[in-house]
Amino acid sequence: MSALSEGLTQIVIPLASLVGIGFALLQWFLVSRVKLSSQDSSNGYKQKLIESDEEEEGINNLEISIKCTEIQHAISVGANSFLFTEYKYLGIFMCVFGAIIFLFLGSVKGFSTKSEPCTYSQGNTCKPALANAIFSTIAFLLGALTSVLSGYLGMKIATYANARTTLEARKGVGKAFITAFRSGAVMGFLLAANGLLVLYVSINLFKLYYGDDWEGLYESITGYGLGGSSMALFGRVGGGIYTKAADVGADLVGKVERNIPEDDPRNPAVIADNVGDNVGDIAGMGSDLFGSYAESSCAALFVASISSFGISHEFTAMSYPLLISSMGIVVCLITTLFATDLFEIKKVSDIEPSLKRQLLISTVLMTAGIAVVSFFALPSEFTLYNFGTEKEVKNWHLFFCVAIGLWAGLIIGYTTEYYTSNAYSPVQDVADACRTGAATNVIFGLALGYKSVIIPIFAIAIAIYVSFSLAAMYGIAVAALGMLSTIATGLAIDAYGPISDNAGGIAEMAGMSHKIRERTDALDAAGNTTAAIGKGFAIGSAALVSLALFGAYVSRAGIKTVDVLTPKAFIGLIVGAMLPYWFSAMTMKSVGSAALKMVEEVRRQFNTIPGLMEGLMEGRVKPDYANCVKISTDASLREMIPPGALVMLTPLIVGTLFGVETLAGVLAGALVSGVQVAISASNTGGAWDNAKKYIEAGVSEHAKSLGPKGSECHKAAVIGDTIGDPLKDTSGPSLNILIKLMAVESLVFAPFFAAHGGFLFKFI
Amino acid sequence: MSALSEGLTQIVIPLASLVGIGFALLQWFLVSRVKLSSQDSSNGYKQKLIESDEEEEGINNLEISIKCTEIQHAISVGANSFLFTEYKYLGIFMCVFGAIIFLFLGSVKGFSTKSEPCTYSQGNTCKPALANAIFSTIAFLLGALTSVLSGYLGMKIATYANARTTLEARKGVGKAFITAFRSGAVMGFLLAANGLLVLYVSINLFKLYYGDDWEGLYESITGYGLGGSSMALFGRVGGGIYTKAADVGADLVGKVERNIPEDDPRNPAVIADNVGDNVGDIAGMGSDLFGSYAESSCAALFVASISSFGISHEFTAMSYPLLISSMGIVVCLITTLFATDLFEIKKVSDIEPSLKRQLLISTVLMTAGIAVVSFFALPSEFTLYNFGTEKEVKNWHLFFCVAIGLWAGLIIGYTTEYYTSNAYSPVQDVADACRTGAATNVIFGLALGYKSVIIPIFAIAIAIYVSFSLAAMYGIAVAALGMLSTIATGLAIDAYGPISDNAGGIAEMAGMSHKIRERTDALDAAGNTTAAIGKGFAIGSAALVSLALFGAYVSRAGIKTVDVLTPKAFIGLIVGAMLPYWFSAMTMKSVGSAALKMVEEVRRQFNTIPGLMEGLMEGRVKPDYANCVKISTDASLREMIPPGALVMLTPLIVGTLFGVETLAGVLAGALVSGVQVAISASNTGGAWDNAKKYIEAGVSEHAKSLGPKGSECHKAAVIGDTIGDPLKDTSGPSLNILIKLMAVESLVFAPFFAAHGGFLFKFI
Repeated sequence: MSALSEGLTQIVIPLASLVGIGFALLQWFLVSRVKLSSQDSSNGYKQKLIESDEEEEGINNLEISIKCTEIQHAISVGANSFLFTEYKYLGIFMCVFGAIIFLFLGSVKGFSTKSEPCTYSQGNTCKPALANAIFSTIAFLLGALTSVLSGYLGMKIATYANARTTLEARKGVGKAFITAFRSGAVMGFLLAANGLLVLYVSINLFKLYYGDDWEGLYESITGYGLGGSSMALFGRVGGGIYTKAADVGADLVGKVERNIPEDDPRNPAVIADNVGDNVGDIAGMGSDLFGSYAESSCAALFVASISSFGISHEFTAMSYPLLISSMGIVVCLITTLFATDLFEIKKVSDIEPSLKRQLLISTVLMTAGIAVVSFFALPSEFTLYNFGTEKEVKNWHLFFCVAIGLWAGLIIGYTTEYYTSNAYSPVQDVADACRTGAATNVIFGLALGYKSVIIPIFAIAIAIYVSFSLAAMYGIAVAALGMLSTIATGLAIDAYGPISDNAGGIAEMAGMSHKIRERTDALDAAGNTTAAIGKGFAIGSAALVSLALFGAYVSRAGIKTVDVLTPKAFIGLIVGAMLPYWFSAMTMKSVGSAALKMVEEVRRQFNTIPGLMEGLMEGRVKPDYANCVKISTDASLREMIPPGALVMLTPLIVGTLFGVETLAGVLAGALVSGVQVAISASNTGGAWDNAKKYIEAGVSEHAKSLGPKGSECHKAAVIGDTIGDPLKDTSGPSLNILIKLMAVESLVFAPFFAAHGGFLFKFI
Repeated sequence: MSALSEGLTQIVIPLASLVGIGFALLQWFLVSRVKLSSQDSSNGYKQKLIESDEEEEGINNLEISIKCTEIQHAISVGANSFLFTEYKYLGIFMCVFGAIIFLFLGSVKGFSTKSEPCTYSQGNTCKPALANAIFSTIAFLLGALTSVLSGYLGMKIATYANARTTLEARKGVGKAFITAFRSGAVMGFLLAANGLLVLYVSINLFKLYYGDDWEGLYESITGYGLGGSSMALFGRVGGGIYTKAADVGADLVGKVERNIPEDDPRNPAVIADNVGDNVGDIAGMGSDLFGSYAESSCAALFVASISSFGISHEFTAMSYPLLISSMGIVVCLITTLFATDLFEIKKVSDIEPSLKRQLLISTVLMTAGIAVVSFFALPSEFTLYNFGTEKEVKNWHLFFCVAIGLWAGLIIGYTTEYYTSNAYSPVQDVADACRTGAATNVIFGLALGYKSVIIPIFAIAIAIYVSFSLAAMYGIAVAALGMLSTIATGLAIDAYGPISDNAGGIAEMAGMSHKIRERTDALDAAGNTTAAIGKGFAIGSAALVSLALFGAYVSRAGIKTVDVLTPKAFIGLIVGAMLPYWFSAMTMKSVGSAALKMVEEVRRQFNTIPGLMEGLMEGRVKPDYANCVKISTDASLREMIPPGALVMLTPLIVGTLFGVETLAGVLAGALVSGVQVAISASNTGGAWDNAKKYIEAGVSEHAKSLGPKGSECHKAAVIGDTIGDPLKDTSGPSLNILIKLMAVESLVFAPFFAAHGGFLFKFI
């Protein structure tokens, strides 16, 4: 028996969630103390004239403050309107797909309302398949709504914080950093706590109906993961296309043709670009990581429910994944204090180490936290389900599983940092290759991305081997959860990036001084690296989660082995390995086409609006920002459908026509191939971006010899950066959703495929 | 029993080989009738003053003819000297690796000379493991030597034919085409016939010792495939780095900085570039396809030897793979006549259809040929080994297996053509994306490459499913053989490309008229597409071959299933899927670094040799070609070692430390991931190259709007082309060797791994 009683578990989990939400609100309150101008209050926040008793330059410049507020308002309105339009489409999708889930799962036993003998806990009676269909659908909808909420809240906070970070940058880099970081923390904690709370409440509500049929209960709960991830897919793809169409379009005309700086207010695509950061990198990523979190919890819960925990109804042990997440919230809370209160950022070069320290601190503390949870929540010995056989496991085995996932995450994070930060030689080599032009820059950048795959893959492989050996598929699931246990901190430093990026954009647009722009640029450069780290975590955890879901799917579909040597599985494997390429082809082409349209529009405005190139800063002539926002919106909504359909339909088609073995092959193939494509794409893009920044900043002798802005080297670097945009922000990060989503979808539909799948092979 | 008697089989196979060799010599004779100037006869060919009774311009211009001869001589000497240096290194490698094979395999039974009970044909006695070690080593050396010979002969013919094609271009495009194509055919037939003959003779010689122990005999013969492929690896990688370092270096300074045409004699890297075509695209590719051919034959023979053919000693049925290849030679001979004698090329636009027709004709004829061979060589019913079980198979089943491989090859070829030829919309879209600069060109090109993977993968998957279902692993092996059965024609149209490329280079360097250069350019553009098609075949067949070898390995290692759900296999799978990235990172970086060195040298020469930019064509000032040749040579020899070591050592390390299951995972992972990377890399590169040519040629209104040479669009296209160079000619085509080679190496070492492998896991 667990040392922690069921009653205490029932208190601890919601308590931790509430603490997380409370902490997020506290951070929000602290951010809100930075006041914007009251000039524009239509965005609903209480905004006063800025208060200032500091001595820095321009702090009392009301005009600048008003301008910042204006720009923030425009970004916020753009992001809001895009998300609402997107969510309208997603609402339709949710209803349709909810109906599909209900129909497919309901048809497994012909919509019969009769109770069935249980599959795993023999001798007992379980709820009818129809109940499963209904509750899976409900869980799907709950997951989808929570995901949408996570993305939306993230966007709200980010658009609330961007201008505040800009204004704080006038007081110094430390103040600006804290504002951006606190805002990231709001998002991180809200999301982690919210995800946990909704899941916890759902389980308890579902239990009212299911009672002792935990098998059915946790089977239905997997719909929560599916809902979370399917929203994340569209969020990432739609947001990714939106942001990169605007970014690429703005850069191609602005930086390359017109030779005006990034985020110059004369550029008509500049608002769309800044909106994009919020809907793509913030809302999309929030949904994505929430999806991973939901899925790894569901995978672990499902495997536990058919193991000794589930069969002997040990609620505390069953709730081990939720308790780990609860501990994660507490650990991250302490970690956050290190950044906001215990250390102070005094100069630009403190930023990156401070963010890196967050990762290390949270990992070290969490390791102790895992030990505590494993000791108190688990019986000292128990059995786990392992594809038809049983496996004897001890509680410290599970400690190692979770801990190795956590530390593998740290290794992936640090490796990503090494390959994408311009403090190290890989990015500097790429920058150096710009000497001979864009072609060598691209060749070196691609090679860097390929190379950056090696260590993360070894880390993932070791984590898989150890956790699998110790605790079978349950081990993998909790390893994934371990990697995500510090999600609040991970998200905080991840969201910090786009907020800083926006802050820089606002500074440039508001015409603030060079000094302030330099500070926001430094924040942003660190943000590029942390964004890459965030993507590294996302993909690493996705690999583990997918494998865990894959294992759960195989169990649920009743397959005993997935033998590569059978033709059914092998063709699945090779076709699955192809899917990431197909998907990337679609998303990259979408960004390319949308960017071409954006370029034409921006060129048109520069050519037809008289005085635009000279104008604005002095007053009268404004570009038509709204038209560019519309191009991005239309393109992303239209273009997110084909890749979305590819991912959502593949498991359905393969499972129905070719059956469970081929689908298992497809999942394994997509997983092992997608991980590589995703990591290399993100890191290549991040490296190009920072190689460009390296040349622009010109900190070292070497960097100076390549620069300055506008030199041939810099132009070559800009080309690399532009190519990297869709790689790192559209196709790369969407791929981890591809692999997770196909796995969780297969898991949810497994009973249907097992009963009616493989239609085509049966026919032949 | 087979309808064809053993005696007749023993006549038919060598006869077909000799016919092939005879036909190759005939083609060589026909090419040699184009006479070069006698000015320089030191390269050993009999060369006379050109004979000419035609009316075309410049035909009697002795000076031009002498210049051509000079240039040809320089290229030939460069290629010769590089290959000899390379072969010196390879000689050392061969000895060392031969010793490793002997030691590893000999140690399986502690170098005992005692006979053993057979593994598969129970009750019989087989030769000792030591004999296996010795004969595997001999087979390895034979394969390696044949591979080297294939590459060397190809290079000899290509450097013999290049200037002759240039001279013939003065008489018209048709004459030039026939010269280039005949030379390609010399290589194709020599290689196919040679490979078959050596294999046939080796089997018969080995039989003198092995007698009735066919299990041992065909196990040792697999060394032949290993030898062929390991030489091919170094040939492809070394040659690929050589040619692309020179090409990229020459282009970056010549085309981009100095604005001089491609192949301009003032460019110091121009000779190295042309040498590169011969050592990379010709010698490397020859070795590569020979390797595929040898491996698929060996895989089929091995599986057959442990099936009913082998156990009941039916020599004709055993020789089915060799008979298919014999038939292939005859079919290709007839096919060649269509191009050289039955149809005539009258205008530039006839070239590509004529080459495509070759593919179609050979495929249609070969389908009939396969039916004939399957009917006469096979018993109407027999049993095949299928991982421990037996499978009843009919002769028409095997017909379908071979035929589906053959037709899958055609589909891959045509798909490749669609995605890389500038006659179709994909390449035209990429060219169009150059309007907005290099970045969109690259984004569209990458997307094109990703997309081009879809149809080939489905074709391969269907071929695998059908052939696997009909005849288990033997079916896969003969499907691979089917795809390669028309290798002579495939190689002819493939080798035609670099020969035309060289011919164009020589025309430019010899200062021949614009008209002639236009003709050679047209030949070359078609050659780009056929080169991509050749790579498509190489990778498609490699996928099938690897799978067949993988199956043979699994049989020989005594594994019954490769279950993705075991941690050992899964970590192999994910790490295996990473290897193509690691390998590509190495090769691309090597090309990049070597190209940087080349750029510096070319810049140095332009800056320090007075009058170089103005000079040469009028007479006196010559660049220092030899220095550039040296840079390419040194770089390629040094840089081919790490990627070569990665490929050669991975199976040894994984097998020894982690055991046969993990190695099986690695092979499957590398296969399914490598195929995608290879196809997308080759096609992206081919598409960029032809997008550039599309803009340069300016045939349509659309193309004219993007051009002419030197426009902003064209510059963007040149950047894409340069990035594509290492993708399509170094990393892409080497990847298929990576997957084949690891599989065949695992197969050869399987007894060792099965006996002593998995050291690390045993230890834990």
